[in-house]
Amino acid sequence: MKILVTGFEPFAGSDVNPSERAATALTSTPIVGAEVEIALLPCVDGACERVLLDAVRQHTPDITIALGEHGRETGLGFERFALNLRDYRIPDNAGATVTDQPVIRGAPAGYFTKLPVHTLVERARRAGVPSRVSRDAGTFLCNQAYFALLHARAIGDIGCDGIFVHVPRLPEQAAASGKGQPSMVTETVVRGLRATMDALVGTSGA
Amino acid sequence: MKILVTGFEPFAGSDVNPSERAATALTSTPIVGAEVEIALLPCVDGACERVLLDAVRQHTPDITIALGEHGRETGLGFERFALNLRDYRIPDNAGATVTDQPVIRGAPAGYFTKLPVHTLVERARRAGVPSRVSRDAGTFLCNQAYFALLHARAIGDIGCDGIFVHVPRLPEQAAASGKGQPSMVTETVVRGLRATMDALVGTSGA
Amino acid sequence: MKILVTGFEPFAGSDVNPSERAATALTSTPIVGAEVEIALLPCVDGACERVLLDAVRQHTPDITIALGEHGRETGLGFERFALNLRDYRIPDNAGATVTDQPVIRGAPAGYFTKLPVHTLVERARRAGVPSRVSRDAGTFLCNQAYFALLHARAIGDIGCDGIFVHVPRLPEQAAASGKGQPSMVTETVVRGLRATMDALVGTSGA
Amino acid sequence: MKILVTGFEPFAGSDVNPSERAATALTSTPIVGAEVEIALLPCVDGACERVLLDAVRQHTPDITIALGEHGRETGLGFERFALNLRDYRIPDNAGATVTDQPVIRGAPAGYFTKLPVHTLVERARRAGVPSRVSRDAGTFLCNQAYFALLHARAIGDIGCDGIFVHVPRLPEQAAASGKGQPSMVTETVVRGLRATMDALVGTSGA
Repeated sequence: MKILVTGFEPFAGSDVNPSERAATALTSTPIVGAEVEIALLPCVDGACERVLLDAVRQHTPDITIALGEHGRETGLGFERFALNLRDYRIPDNAGATVTDQPVIRGAPAGYFTKLPVHTLVERARRAGVPSRVSRDAGTFLCNQAYFALLHARAIGDIGCDGIFVHVPRLPEQAAASGKGQPSMVTETVVRGLRATMDALVGTSGA
Repeated sequence: MKILVTGFEPFAGSDVNPSERAATALTSTPIVGAEVEIALLPCVDGACERVLLDAVRQHTPDITIALGEHGRETGLGFERFALNLRDYRIPDNAGATVTDQPVIRGAPAGYFTKLPVHTLVERARRAGVPSRVSRDAGTFLCNQAYFALLHARAIGDIGCDGIFVHVPRLPEQAAASGKGQPSMVTETVVRGLRATMDALVGTSGA
Repeated sequence: MKILVTGFEPFAGSDVNPSERAATALTSTPIVGAEVEIALLPCVDGACERVLLDAVRQHTPDITIALGEHGRETGLGFERFALNLRDYRIPDNAGATVTDQPVIRGAPAGYFTKLPVHTLVERARRAGVPSRVSRDAGTFLCNQAYFALLHARAIGDIGCDGIFVHVPRLPEQAAASGKGQPSMVTETVVRGLRATMDALVGTSGA
Repeated sequence: MKILVTGFEPFAGSDVNPSERAATALTSTPIVGAEVEIALLPCVDGACERVLLDAVRQHTPDITIALGEHGRETGLGFERFALNLRDYRIPDNAGATVTDQPVIRGAPAGYFTKLPVHTLVERARRAGVPSRVSRDAGTFLCNQAYFALLHARAIGDIGCDGIFVHVPRLPEQAAASGKGQPSMVTETVVRGLRATMDALVGTSGA
């Protein structure tokens, strides 16, 4: 099985992104039964989904796990749904903000992932990693990339299933913000994602 | 400088306590300029402060850093104040609950720590560890031990200053609870505490 | 313009539901330019949406405003999206719980309301009522009724647009729970809903 | 029994303060067995406690109930403790901020109220008003006034007992902030405070 893991570049003034760190770290140790490729997405409206789909076409994975940072997450947030909506006030890395626009005009209102989110959460928890099922991926770039991925799959443009997983900020980011944000080190994120992949591959490891 | 670090035993059905883990881990690598002793406190009303004060009398530290677990903390919570109050519904490890009782009858209503909490928080943050000044240590066993320590110092029974630091649960505890609790690995807790000790010792390390 | 306002019956052991109270109160004073009908929905899987659609067919409103209680809402939560998903652990009033089932098998994954949620929130806020745009209506009965309404509209079964609005618990409910839940009196909820209706009717009042 | 109720003037850019509204509203209907006087405190470091103590000396109440606004409170917060500490970053109405200063140099570290906070919370809840026991009144002006009151009582300068009660923002304030703050209308605050006074007076009403 081939798995593509994507992370986002830093944004909103930070010089690091925990999703990029986790994606990179996942390649350092082999997963039994899986070949892992990674890609880095820009935090730019329109560009993030283009780069994601290009990576899917290049690597032709069986499954894509897209990662993104979330300042209020205390653990891994497995997103079960992508909305056909862009609506955000925090500027992307090109300075754009968007109100009430679709991700893809004329596409359906939303898509559920076909992957078993409750099972994945259960497996990550059993590996000792705080995790939850999240109902929607928001209306910022993470959702945008996720929606584009699930739509491309639905219309047959690509052949891989996908899941979006939000991860907490790194301790050093939360420390610098001084706002009491929860955090998680990359090692813990990676342990949860490896348990997730083990579940997807169908091996018994955890 | 001699520093005593104390942790609590597991409670409320958990089989681990992050404060004990952190205390133990602190002894594995030397702190420049400081000698570190550790002690483990029982989660039992009355006993926790007795064991703490016995350890202080035995080790005669210059400073005591008492650690305790807090399920809602996202980082290190440096407690600036101890209340002369016991009031809790979660039973201690002997099954007791308490309503509206003093820690020490006839003692003052509360004590501030004499250690510079804003500076300690700043140093832990600079070491990349989420931290905050907390106004009070609650009214459970953590506060009880803390109050007894500051009172013993105030009346001249012991000679060491002290600070109480609440730490988040471990990732495996938060994962098992399934309640979205924040968490922190022992390595991060220890990094923050070492920065704290460096500040207390007055070295330039961090 | 004819507006149907629906509330839910009490559930989860409470003997009152703020959504029912608000719906009832809305009929006591006329809205300029609007005729208001109300209906009460059972908190029972399957039945809630049937009663809602029956009421729509009976009253043939131009717009339906469906109300429901939410224990963590601090104000009016205008729901912009309904998911084709039922997934809840709190039993409904018939004792049922559901995991990972669609509201309507074979229907699309979700629907956006066609009503202008940002405008409605703005109008309620200008009337002094705390309000927000909410991304999704959850996966309990509120969402179930909402999804059924928007689906019936999409397939041409009914002719009215709709919006779901979550309201906080009543002060007496929050007081009894002892959990620090936010609350709102019916008068404030009604003031916000009247401003919403004014905006929908297109009058200048607020 | 004579009861003095104090509120604060508006601050932080708001043109209203829910504590002033509640104090004023309390005088409109008599409390059986109690004579109620009110006073308005300035939001200025040093001045707030002076005006409070002047009002106590002028009215010579048996009990003082001091009210203040709190943006995160969901109900009435009965403060059990006042700290001898001023430490705030939000400027007072004279533009001052303070770091780590005592309220009264040389005074004790803190005081508990002598009034039965658990009983008062229970009575307010029974009157249908969300309420809780709060451990400390913060380190801003509310705490400053409270500490000065309890200290004056302790040293025999005044003869009245006191309690500080934090109240939520008004709905119109929470609506204008757009931050999802909880709120409470003056009628509900007053109902809770009247139940509190009934308990203090010792009548059976609620």
